[in-house]
Amino acid sequence: MTRVPIAGVGMTAFGAQGERTSRDLFAEAASKAYDDSGLAPEDVEEVFYGNYMGELAEGQGHSGPLAAEAAGVTAPATRIESACASSGAAVRHGVNRIRNGDVDVVLVGGAERMTNLSTADGTAGLAAAADALWEINAGMTFPGAYSLMANRYFEEYGGTREDLAHIAVKNHDHAVENELAQFRRSIDVKDVLTAPDVCSPFGLYDCSPMSDGGSAALLVSESFAEERGLDPEVAIVGTGQGGDRMALQDRASMARAPAAERAASAAYADAGIGPDDVDFAEVHDCFTIAEVLAIEALGFYEVGEGIDAATEGETAIDGELPINLSGGLKAKGHPVGATGCGQISELTKLLRGDHVNSDAVEDAETALAHNAGGTVASCVVTVLEVTQ
Amino acid sequence: MTRVPIAGVGMTAFGAQGERTSRDLFAEAASKAYDDSGLAPEDVEEVFYGNYMGELAEGQGHSGPLAAEAAGVTAPATRIESACASSGAAVRHGVNRIRNGDVDVVLVGGAERMTNLSTADGTAGLAAAADALWEINAGMTFPGAYSLMANRYFEEYGGTREDLAHIAVKNHDHAVENELAQFRRSIDVKDVLTAPDVCSPFGLYDCSPMSDGGSAALLVSESFAEERGLDPEVAIVGTGQGGDRMALQDRASMARAPAAERAASAAYADAGIGPDDVDFAEVHDCFTIAEVLAIEALGFYEVGEGIDAATEGETAIDGELPINLSGGLKAKGHPVGATGCGQISELTKLLRGDHVNSDAVEDAETALAHNAGGTVASCVVTVLEVTQ
Repeated sequence: MTRVPIAGVGMTAFGAQGERTSRDLFAEAASKAYDDSGLAPEDVEEVFYGNYMGELAEGQGHSGPLAAEAAGVTAPATRIESACASSGAAVRHGVNRIRNGDVDVVLVGGAERMTNLSTADGTAGLAAAADALWEINAGMTFPGAYSLMANRYFEEYGGTREDLAHIAVKNHDHAVENELAQFRRSIDVKDVLTAPDVCSPFGLYDCSPMSDGGSAALLVSESFAEERGLDPEVAIVGTGQGGDRMALQDRASMARAPAAERAASAAYADAGIGPDDVDFAEVHDCFTIAEVLAIEALGFYEVGEGIDAATEGETAIDGELPINLSGGLKAKGHPVGATGCGQISELTKLLRGDHVNSDAVEDAETALAHNAGGTVASCVVTVLEVTQ
Repeated sequence: MTRVPIAGVGMTAFGAQGERTSRDLFAEAASKAYDDSGLAPEDVEEVFYGNYMGELAEGQGHSGPLAAEAAGVTAPATRIESACASSGAAVRHGVNRIRNGDVDVVLVGGAERMTNLSTADGTAGLAAAADALWEINAGMTFPGAYSLMANRYFEEYGGTREDLAHIAVKNHDHAVENELAQFRRSIDVKDVLTAPDVCSPFGLYDCSPMSDGGSAALLVSESFAEERGLDPEVAIVGTGQGGDRMALQDRASMARAPAAERAASAAYADAGIGPDDVDFAEVHDCFTIAEVLAIEALGFYEVGEGIDAATEGETAIDGELPINLSGGLKAKGHPVGATGCGQISELTKLLRGDHVNSDAVEDAETALAHNAGGTVASCVVTVLEVTQ
């Protein structure tokens, strides 16, 4: 395990951003990361940029060099696409690049523009992260896929729509004071249960929204941080990535997420810790059930027991293991290519004490990000620690 | 510099592949790489997969896990998108991953399906690798962009359409015996000059075709190769990646390729060699002028002198520095996501002596691949050496 200090982070507000393009959004996020770190574009030696559906939403591929340009950099830049885990994967490859020892400063992050699309086009664009031949051709979209997972979970382990509702309520609560969040208002269980149906068991509040947004982080080597007197308060100490069969029908169970289990196992080994060492986490709650699968795959809860966590208040801001203090994908928003690095940005601020919800985790030392792609056919887990 | 042995390579034929999808094409390429190496899917610890326009051509994003699945692997898999340099970049990140020391076997490669699209849709899809706001919106497509580069080159350094024609003629000659090539027939200068116009100064034969295809390589650590008694005859000894402003109008010159210069400089430094040490190369001749810009950026020729190389026979199969012995993108074909790793496959076989054109480079020790994205807003250069 080589620690990779986070010199600075930046995020746009997530939500509807009107005419702003992905490059505009990433430029803002990168600019904030420069300000946060004291570093400049000239310092950057490589860029890893996550973007999912630029071709479909903006007619723009080859977005690595374009993102670098938006951040004022001509260093080598690579676009990483792993559906909703795109910028989580970008962070991981940035960490590995620093660990190669060849470069000292890597800019990672991502951006996505989605709200310029109609709901139908946005839904169809997102569906391209499933198996085009065997799922999309059969009419599957992501609300449908995750609802299958939820129903299967209920059948195998129990649980109710109301349990899921508590997850949405919790994450909305967490977002109220987060000025970068898309939905800054509390909801209650009744709101969730009486919301318009999307796909049983999901109503509107079980689903993360369409969002625009950008995120960025500047990763540095320990020697560079020392040489430049940066003194970063947080470092990445472990990463892991897991894969799985693409289509739900090819998996042993629709109520488990083995790619996340693999990613977590690798990240814990890399960091030299276990799930009990994690003080709080951001997990990929694209749908309410996804948070349940995540906290089980991460080893925070036994399989079949994660469903009660929010209902019992254990994962709330004042619970034992706060989950999604930012508001999560549900309430902070989910501009898919920006989400993974957005988690890193939020966790860094929470650990440093400069996040609106930092008080809830005042003595915390270890935090974790869980970023999933598709129906968890890919997953990246990242472990952060305070350096002092 | 840490050598990364190439345990095995595989490629489909490039060309029109009917109903075959990208996953089918990558499965075939990976299968050939397994056979070539003696390794099995269970040995693979990570996958880097290059694909450019799966969303547009096949309605399929998130293709990292899908490519891994096609190759029989559930290890972490990441899709790399850098336009036509996608699988060159996948190779580079695979090399870096082996060099991290965490994994011993990485499957790299790429695939693209293009011939299922109409010419208009294919051209529009490719154009998404340029700047959507400032080039595509102005009506630019790639034949137009590269023709601007050619005309500017002529104005700055001289040269004629006939000089470019010699490049097409040479690369067609090289492809005649290559059973994986799309166009296995000789043409002459008159054929090129009298072909239908595409965009002045280009006729049809100045342009690489739409193609389907897949490519793969198995990269291993030296310790793993030794332990398993693999004895690979070729290794990657250096890689470099370069970036540039996205739009042609933002560059200092349209007749140069600084991203390629940067990639070459980094790759040479990594390999501890210079351009004079290279015995032969595969370069990214998406248009005839691109080969000129490449051999100059790589330092094989002074700026302004590369235009005469093919005319004078220096880069032909019996010349001093054979370029594109496979037939190049021009005649072997250009399934964009497969092209970069396809170069690695061809160079490996040429160096090992089991390529149809190996006799031309019998005592060669060092070869180089140059893989460019867009109008060279991104570029990856890879140096290969024989290990004995």
